[in-house]
Amino acid sequence: MIKGKDGSNIPKVVIERLPRYYRYFDRLDGEMEKISSKKLGELMDTSASQVRLDLSYFGDFGQQGYGYNIKKLKRELANILDIETKKNVIIIGAGNIGRALTRFNALKEAGFNLTALFDVKPILIGERLNNVLIRHIDELSSYLESHDISIAVLAVPKAVANKVVKTLIEHGIKGILNFSRTDLDVPKGFPIENIHIMDKILALSFIIRANK
Amino acid sequence: MIKGKDGSNIPKVVIERLPRYYRYFDRLDGEMEKISSKKLGELMDTSASQVRLDLSYFGDFGQQGYGYNIKKLKRELANILDIETKKNVIIIGAGNIGRALTRFNALKEAGFNLTALFDVKPILIGERLNNVLIRHIDELSSYLESHDISIAVLAVPKAVANKVVKTLIEHGIKGILNFSRTDLDVPKGFPIENIHIMDKILALSFIIRANK
Repeated sequence: MIKGKDGSNIPKVVIERLPRYYRYFDRLDGEMEKISSKKLGELMDTSASQVRLDLSYFGDFGQQGYGYNIKKLKRELANILDIETKKNVIIIGAGNIGRALTRFNALKEAGFNLTALFDVKPILIGERLNNVLIRHIDELSSYLESHDISIAVLAVPKAVANKVVKTLIEHGIKGILNFSRTDLDVPKGFPIENIHIMDKILALSFIIRANK
Repeated sequence: MIKGKDGSNIPKVVIERLPRYYRYFDRLDGEMEKISSKKLGELMDTSASQVRLDLSYFGDFGQQGYGYNIKKLKRELANILDIETKKNVIIIGAGNIGRALTRFNALKEAGFNLTALFDVKPILIGERLNNVLIRHIDELSSYLESHDISIAVLAVPKAVANKVVKTLIEHGIKGILNFSRTDLDVPKGFPIENIHIMDKILALSFIIRANK
C-alpha cells in the first residue's frame, strides 16, 4: 500500500482520482484564482468532504474560508504526478489501439516518452509510426535489458497477453497499462491499470436498459 | 438508481464489474463445469463474499456446497447484459481512437452494431472504414432523428466535446461512452461511462514512483 502524508494508506480509488483533480485544476487555471471544496465538488459531481478527504492524503493544500489556490494546486499535483520527469514507455502490439496511442500527443504532454513498439507481423517490423520504430517481439527481452523502460502498454490479443506479461516482468518492467481483453496474471501488488473498453460499453448498455 | 432482484439499489461499481464476471464465465466455459465463489474470488483477485454479494444483486445463482454452474451463469449474464439484442452505436470523431474502435471486432460480438461515424474534416467525409460511412457532423441531428441509436462513442477533442454532447442528448441518445479528455456535462443520472486513458497512465506512474 502507498502511504499518504499522514502515514495512512491511500486507497487505490483515491490515487485513480488524482489525475482527474489535476485535469480540473488545469482547466480552471486562468479562469479563476481560487476555488472552494464545495464548488469543486459540484463541478466534479462529488461532495465537498470527498474533495477535502481525497486531497488531504497528499498534503495540506486548502485553507479554511479561502479554498484551494488553483495555480498552486495545479503545480503541486503536477509535482505529485511527476509530470516534469520523462518516463520511457513501450507499446506491445501495433494494431489499432497501439497505433492510436502512438499518435496520442497527450502522452508526451504528460511526460511519457514512447521509445518503441513491438509486434509479431513481419510486414510491420521496421516501419516507423509517428517516428517510433516497430520492432519484433523477439527483441523485447534484450530491449528491456538495454533500456530504462518504466511502463509497457499492452495492446495484444488476449491469447498471448500473459505470455508477453511474463517476459515484461522478468525483465524488470515497473508497471503495465493493459488494453487486452483479459485480466493479467501479475504478482500481488504489481502496478497495473486495466482499460477494458468492452466492459465499459457492456455496463453502459446494461444501465440504459435498466433505466427504461 | 437501478434496483436489484431483491429491490435494493445496485451500486454502480457492481454494475461495472458485471461484464468482468461474464468474461470469466466465458473463459471458464469448456474448462470446467462449476466453480465455487472462493475459487472464483481467487481467480478474480477478490473475496468469495464479494463474489456472492455482487452476483446476488442479479439473481439466485449459486447453490451452497455446489457453487456456480458455469454454462448456466454465462447464459444468465449474457441475458442480463443483453448480448443477443443488437444495439445501434455511432462514433463521433474519426481520429485514431474512433478508427481503432471501428475495427474492433469485439463490439460486434457483444451485440453492438456500428452504423455511422461522424467527423468535421472534409477529406474524411464519404470515406468508408470497415464498411462504415463517415458522415459530416452537421448531419448528426437529422441522423439521430431518423435512426434508432442507443449509444454514442465520443472520441473528439475536449474543446468540442460538450457541444457534441448537447446535440446528442437533445436528439435522444440513451448513453455515451466518453473517450474525450474531459468530464462531460450531462443531466444527473444520464448513462455515461468515461475512459480516461491519460488518467490511468498517470495513476500508474504515480503508483510506480510511490512503490520505490
